Amino acid sequence: MASGARHAEPPARPADALGRLIEALRRLPGVGVKSAQRMAYHLLQHDRDGALQLAHALDEAVHQVRHCERCHTFTEQPVCTTCLDPLRDARQLCVIETPADQAAVERTGSYKGLYFVLMGKLSPLDGIGAHDIGLPVLLERVGDGTVQEVIVATNFTAEGEVTAHVIAQALQKAGVRVTRLARGVPIGSELEYVDLGTIAHALVDRR
Amino acid sequence: MASGARHAEPPARPADALGRLIEALRRLPGVGVKSAQRMAYHLLQHDRDGALQLAHALDEAVHQVRHCERCHTFTEQPVCTTCLDPLRDARQLCVIETPADQAAVERTGSYKGLYFVLMGKLSPLDGIGAHDIGLPVLLERVGDGTVQEVIVATNFTAEGEVTAHVIAQALQKAGVRVTRLARGVPIGSELEYVDLGTIAHALVDRR
Ligand SMILES: [Zn+2]
Ligand SMILES: [Zn+2]
Repeated sequence: MASGARHAEPPARPADALGRLIEALRRLPGVGVKSAQRMAYHLLQHDRDGALQLAHALDEAVHQVRHCERCHTFTEQPVCTTCLDPLRDARQLCVIETPADQAAVERTGSYKGLYFVLMGKLSPLDGIGAHDIGLPVLLERVGDGTVQEVIVATNFTAEGEVTAHVIAQALQKAGVRVTRLARGVPIGSELEYVDLGTIAHALVDRR
Repeated sequence: MASGARHAEPPARPADALGRLIEALRRLPGVGVKSAQRMAYHLLQHDRDGALQLAHALDEAVHQVRHCERCHTFTEQPVCTTCLDPLRDARQLCVIETPADQAAVERTGSYKGLYFVLMGKLSPLDGIGAHDIGLPVLLERVGDGTVQEVIVATNFTAEGEVTAHVIAQALQKAGVRVTRLARGVPIGSELEYVDLGTIAHALVDRR
């Protein structure tokens, strides 16, 4: 019984502040135990100001950054500045996975409509379903009659394509025109890494 | 004059909390702007608890972690537990670059002496000199007559070898026996990545 109970125990919380810092750094994506160790040693040995700056920035962001009520991107206001911009064309709605993808589309300078940011993509294996990417909210928004075209600009990866397919099917039932970025964007690549000319061209050639 | 002044300006502080978080994450070693962005999005979207835990761990470590008065490693006490351990042999002193290297030597189980942690290595190009690695403190400590042998276990890299050479010269003037880990440790490698058997063997074969 005792050994069975031992298996069920969670890993012990490190007893010292350095151990707890290394453990906390490991929660960053892509950071293993060696990297976390190096980061902790670096901050404590060479950049304690940077460590305090990071602590403050994390605290500030967690408490101040929320999701835009209209497009779901990160913002510190109820509605983000893009959604509030009266010069943008509310008849077009571009659906993208992340704020980084939105920034890539913005940099092309060839899109003047609004956005809906999924803040992820469908991924049944990770338990990320239609609700998690805000599909019900998107359908409700498109249902108000202002939006005339939805440009689905999810990534051209397997999961991005499935996401695009599910969104397109749901929106077509709602009777709105749905287009997809043209396949000028190389298959298998992620939008934020694609050169601006390719994205601009794909916007023009959307189908 | 106005354009000259513009060149002198530091990069503008990001106006929003998300931008400031990305900027702060970039101060971590090995983290570029794309990684910082992904980390920030991940924390805000999926792990706000982790972000707060990291903020707290950073704050705690900066305020509580100091250097051991005897061996210079990180500790929350004036003197670390290794230095305070009465079962360790105070006649042997192993000089290593980092706490991670010390942990690697400890894991071999074949060393029972004390340590002196340089918390770095000589690197004139980066402005890291003898004072920064605590050489004067090391000389003073060895001068008290207790230490009979100093085992220099800096890494077998170019900078580690130079550091070992400078330390050995300084200590030999002080009349103490100086040994170096045997070259069983592969040239060009870093101690913390070396298998334990090799380190144990090199300890026995020290010269
Ligand atoms: Zn918005
Ligand atoms: Zn110590």
